[in-house]
Amino acid sequence: MNHAQAASPANASADLGASTGTHDVAYSPSPSPSPSPADGGTPTGAAATSMPSEAPSPVASAFRLDHVEPPSWWIGMKRPALQVLLHGPGIGALTVALVPKDGVTLLGVQRGDSPNYLFVDLHLDASATPGALQLQLKRGDTVVLTHAYPLQAREPGSAQRQGFGPKDAIYLVVPDRFANGDPSLDRVDGLTEGPNRADPGGRHGGDLAGLTRHLDYIADMGFTMIWPTPLSENNSARWSYHGYAATDFYRVDARFGSNDDYRRLSVEARAKGLGLIQDVVLNHIGSHHWWMKDLPTADWINTWPQYTETHHARMSLQDPYAAPSDRKRFSDGWFSPGMPDLNQRQPLLETYLTQMSLWWIEQIGLAGVRTDTYSYSDRAFLTAWSSRLREEYPRLNIVGEEWSPHPAVVAYWQAGKRNHDGYVSALPSLMDFPLHEALLAGMTQHDSHDGGFMKLYEALAHDFVYPDPGNLVLFEGNHDTPRLYSMLHEDLALTTMAWTYLAFVKRIPQFFYGTEVLLTSPRERDDGAVRADFPGGWSGDRVNAFTGEGLRDDQRRAQAFLKRLLNWRKHEPLAHDAALMQYAPLDGCFVLFRYAGSNEAQGAQGGQVAQAALAAQAPPTGRRLMLVMNKRPEPHALALDRFPEMIRGGESATDVLTGQRHILGATLQVPGRSALLLSIE
Amino acid sequence: MNHAQAASPANASADLGASTGTHDVAYSPSPSPSPSPADGGTPTGAAATSMPSEAPSPVASAFRLDHVEPPSWWIGMKRPALQVLLHGPGIGALTVALVPKDGVTLLGVQRGDSPNYLFVDLHLDASATPGALQLQLKRGDTVVLTHAYPLQAREPGSAQRQGFGPKDAIYLVVPDRFANGDPSLDRVDGLTEGPNRADPGGRHGGDLAGLTRHLDYIADMGFTMIWPTPLSENNSARWSYHGYAATDFYRVDARFGSNDDYRRLSVEARAKGLGLIQDVVLNHIGSHHWWMKDLPTADWINTWPQYTETHHARMSLQDPYAAPSDRKRFSDGWFSPGMPDLNQRQPLLETYLTQMSLWWIEQIGLAGVRTDTYSYSDRAFLTAWSSRLREEYPRLNIVGEEWSPHPAVVAYWQAGKRNHDGYVSALPSLMDFPLHEALLAGMTQHDSHDGGFMKLYEALAHDFVYPDPGNLVLFEGNHDTPRLYSMLHEDLALTTMAWTYLAFVKRIPQFFYGTEVLLTSPRERDDGAVRADFPGGWSGDRVNAFTGEGLRDDQRRAQAFLKRLLNWRKHEPLAHDAALMQYAPLDGCFVLFRYAGSNEAQGAQGGQVAQAALAAQAPPTGRRLMLVMNKRPEPHALALDRFPEMIRGGESATDVLTGQRHILGATLQVPGRSALLLSIE
Repeated sequence: MNHAQAASPANASADLGASTGTHDVAYSPSPSPSPSPADGGTPTGAAATSMPSEAPSPVASAFRLDHVEPPSWWIGMKRPALQVLLHGPGIGALTVALVPKDGVTLLGVQRGDSPNYLFVDLHLDASATPGALQLQLKRGDTVVLTHAYPLQAREPGSAQRQGFGPKDAIYLVVPDRFANGDPSLDRVDGLTEGPNRADPGGRHGGDLAGLTRHLDYIADMGFTMIWPTPLSENNSARWSYHGYAATDFYRVDARFGSNDDYRRLSVEARAKGLGLIQDVVLNHIGSHHWWMKDLPTADWINTWPQYTETHHARMSLQDPYAAPSDRKRFSDGWFSPGMPDLNQRQPLLETYLTQMSLWWIEQIGLAGVRTDTYSYSDRAFLTAWSSRLREEYPRLNIVGEEWSPHPAVVAYWQAGKRNHDGYVSALPSLMDFPLHEALLAGMTQHDSHDGGFMKLYEALAHDFVYPDPGNLVLFEGNHDTPRLYSMLHEDLALTTMAWTYLAFVKRIPQFFYGTEVLLTSPRERDDGAVRADFPGGWSGDRVNAFTGEGLRDDQRRAQAFLKRLLNWRKHEPLAHDAALMQYAPLDGCFVLFRYAGSNEAQGAQGGQVAQAALAAQAPPTGRRLMLVMNKRPEPHALALDRFPEMIRGGESATDVLTGQRHILGATLQVPGRSALLLSIE
Repeated sequence: MNHAQAASPANASADLGASTGTHDVAYSPSPSPSPSPADGGTPTGAAATSMPSEAPSPVASAFRLDHVEPPSWWIGMKRPALQVLLHGPGIGALTVALVPKDGVTLLGVQRGDSPNYLFVDLHLDASATPGALQLQLKRGDTVVLTHAYPLQAREPGSAQRQGFGPKDAIYLVVPDRFANGDPSLDRVDGLTEGPNRADPGGRHGGDLAGLTRHLDYIADMGFTMIWPTPLSENNSARWSYHGYAATDFYRVDARFGSNDDYRRLSVEARAKGLGLIQDVVLNHIGSHHWWMKDLPTADWINTWPQYTETHHARMSLQDPYAAPSDRKRFSDGWFSPGMPDLNQRQPLLETYLTQMSLWWIEQIGLAGVRTDTYSYSDRAFLTAWSSRLREEYPRLNIVGEEWSPHPAVVAYWQAGKRNHDGYVSALPSLMDFPLHEALLAGMTQHDSHDGGFMKLYEALAHDFVYPDPGNLVLFEGNHDTPRLYSMLHEDLALTTMAWTYLAFVKRIPQFFYGTEVLLTSPRERDDGAVRADFPGGWSGDRVNAFTGEGLRDDQRRAQAFLKRLLNWRKHEPLAHDAALMQYAPLDGCFVLFRYAGSNEAQGAQGGQVAQAALAAQAPPTGRRLMLVMNKRPEPHALALDRFPEMIRGGESATDVLTGQRHILGATLQVPGRSALLLSIE
């Protein structure tokens, strides 16, 4: 036990009730004995673990399995290896055998430092038939326990699923704060924290039922992806709502619903054109995780002589002058006393975390993964983990959180980047913190040679450092940052301008729930306020943003605007993966274009890709998009001869949001403090 | 004639008196007919250009040479080619011949669009003997003019001179504002602007004599290099003092002194251990430059249908989304109406600018070149220009001004950087604007996960993007930025802390004249105020910083501190090119070390250079330097076990500035708001 565990008041082990039941009951609420899309095919408790029928023995009853993880697997995964963690009192002393099954081989068994674990290595041939695999635990020659381990068939096309990408618009929700669909789940036996809507840091009761109920709203708004903050069980006494301190990696927090509810959400969402992105935490767990009472190995958690927190100096990883001890402290220091830091260098844990991620992707039918505190985990592990996920699902997208304002730092982690230190990453996407910060600066700062729009211009111009900038996720806000509307001084014009930029620019746009009705927050970080309840998500709410009831007029207009914008974007191929051209901001105006083609010189790895290629660019003859942002209060007569690469004289254009027609003559009249989004025919 | 010329009120041509004399008088104030180090060997007017003695002709008197540039050259340069510009009324109609001289060949003659220019291409064999080369200008077979062109011997070791580098500390002075050594030069016939010390934008009378007189002061302070802002003639009606709008590239402004005075300064400075860095402007000239009345070719200057200013969007050059027209506007747009933009793509001008730079290096014995507005010139030209200078002087240093806060942008221009677009630069050094800005932020911002010291830490950690970060010039202030002391809220502790960082870190440090006596300025850019007169530079000054007379006590202490710091640095090899290690800022303290060795992984081009190399770093056994900066007002007991790579328990250390001894036990007591600079034995 380490200092942090002792130091954390949240670390008492008395209230771990939910972890002590058999895994079967909690994992398999569905009564169906046969695997189906709806219940995920996990076994029911009674059928799965039983006294062996052939060789009953009085000693057998002394053993039980509290955890079997992953709880099921699939035939036909790209890699045939599977390692199953078994956890139960004293089982480390047992041996393992299989009831013979064609195509399944027992490769071996590994043990941890605790006497209560077995890690069973299996080989699953693609030729094996789905159905239960009988795992036998033996003492000597005596089978003391049999577990029916479900081996399922994969859904057709599972491996080739298309992950989220530039075609999509992502809606980030904090499930506890979105909609309370089933108040009966607000308090659950065995889970410590009950509901308290008056407490900004407490549980408010939002759940999967609420989210599922409002899928139509989300789809109608024009979103195509939902990213809920983590749903996994967080059984801590306080702040359990946010989900970033897992106490069970394989169980949806019962206050949100069940694993099956989650699967149901996925199925229903898909039917409405919505994909799901799961929020995964690889760096740490909650101090009430069941592991903490009985660590599988002594090195499962990064421990220190005294409680040692990460210094958050993420650049120690890139810094050519960093001390090795400083790098270690960044990676292995704890995020907080309540969040024990996982040692992903431990091979059993590495396999555990990787299989856990694969299990959810396959089980729930995910369109992607968002990885929390990405760079805080072990670097080599991260590459192995990302590679493994992409090996199994080559078109899946994974977006990492690297909270840095520096493009060179974010780019370090993107797959394909040739790094100064030889580090090879396999992560396809990252959250674009640099461009997010520049967007705020661009909208709010006074324009100058290096401020305001120039900041936004220069941030996007930094795309040359990224191997694949178009696959970055640009957000207008998230659960950790102050609300956009507040950061823009509650200026509706600037807010819609920022959204329009997000929908237009070569990125995957992501919006934070409630932004569409102009939710506010303090301008300094305040998690509770930022993660306020979505109006209408609770019965009795005076204001209902789902129906429009009680909304102020500006809220209504904002919501309608974003709906129009995203529904336009959804069907506009030029906003998805066309080339982009931007012109330096001038006179408070910033003008960008999208056009059929590709930005050849855009990647960092282009080598001799020549400026000449761009210079020789003939003005495109096809349709183009034009975004004009005028930040000044006065209307501006924009001289169009500054854009010879993109505009021929006399063309006509349509405002895609209002339908208004323009003839592109010598100038274009741009109203004050507004964005024009035109399609040039 | 273009719009800008017409539009600029400073562009009237009536007052160009100085340009209309023959070049000889102005270039050769020395009466000595034979080349010498002191007078540079330029010819005297009477001896150089004369009626031909053999073939006198009455028509000859109609011709004269107003400019011969370069005015002299050397035998034994690496490249034997020389192109001499001849300028005089109607001479474009003449032909050129040489009076035969061994080793010298006339390769050809080129003409511009103006009838008043000839460009004479010569080949100078290394075997040629120094002495005058007789250039003959002929009409038909008749020699109408002969010019004795000086070909000089080079000084021994000239090509292999060591340029400024990490061993040096640079003192930047604005000559007009440093010391008035010769008031008789304050007003000079033919130069429009007279002295007006009351006008912040006027001429104050500082000159080369003043600078030369105070070389001992500069050397005693511990500086080893002087960078004066440009000395070239700037004959404009206003703001002529700053020197960035040349009206004659080959002539020191007579209000500063003569070319010979400049050479004398160099010789005397060298004797005191001081090198000279010349400030060169390649991008533009002043609108009163003599070229503007008679452009050699139609494309000598970048012209536009209407006056068009650069948009200063420097990143258009790197931006993968930039419009070609936007790149052109950045490079070819004018800096201001009074600064015509040179077209370095014009081959005759390219050669002119390159030879002009070489001429000053050789003539004055420079230790380096600082290039103004570097990126604004043509990119291909810049590489050719830098390459040519380094071909001739392989160890010369050249530092470019790229005023960007972004390391990736500054790095783009450093020789050895592998760029995304294939651009190859040959510039060895750049001004480190990113680290300068981070230094201010580090000293003034509240410390947080991304503010204060963390900004400084992260800026230096960005060194991985540079091919040669140790050769960048880090400045505490310059002629364009507000005064350091003012930016640090007139806090002496923070000011000396910033200086100490500058002296310690792996950079070439540069200080701005007057900083040592805490000169102030507004915190927003104010050129006149920033470039205030150095106290004591003018007779009658009440305060004299050279003697200490009238200085406040804090000024005295600051000056003494910097003197001690720089004189220590001068003799401390570990501060020059040793390896560096920095630890993440914690508790308001920031700790760095220098130690014998090299930072292998530091360059951007290292490829597979492994983190392992650093991780395996054994604690050095030799002497180390340790810098501790404590920004908080409270003393801090710094736990030393955080630095296992750099400190063994129980070592002793000496404060290099006070001589105080410390034993490095469990903690080190660091006074509040102070920097400790220790040598660990």
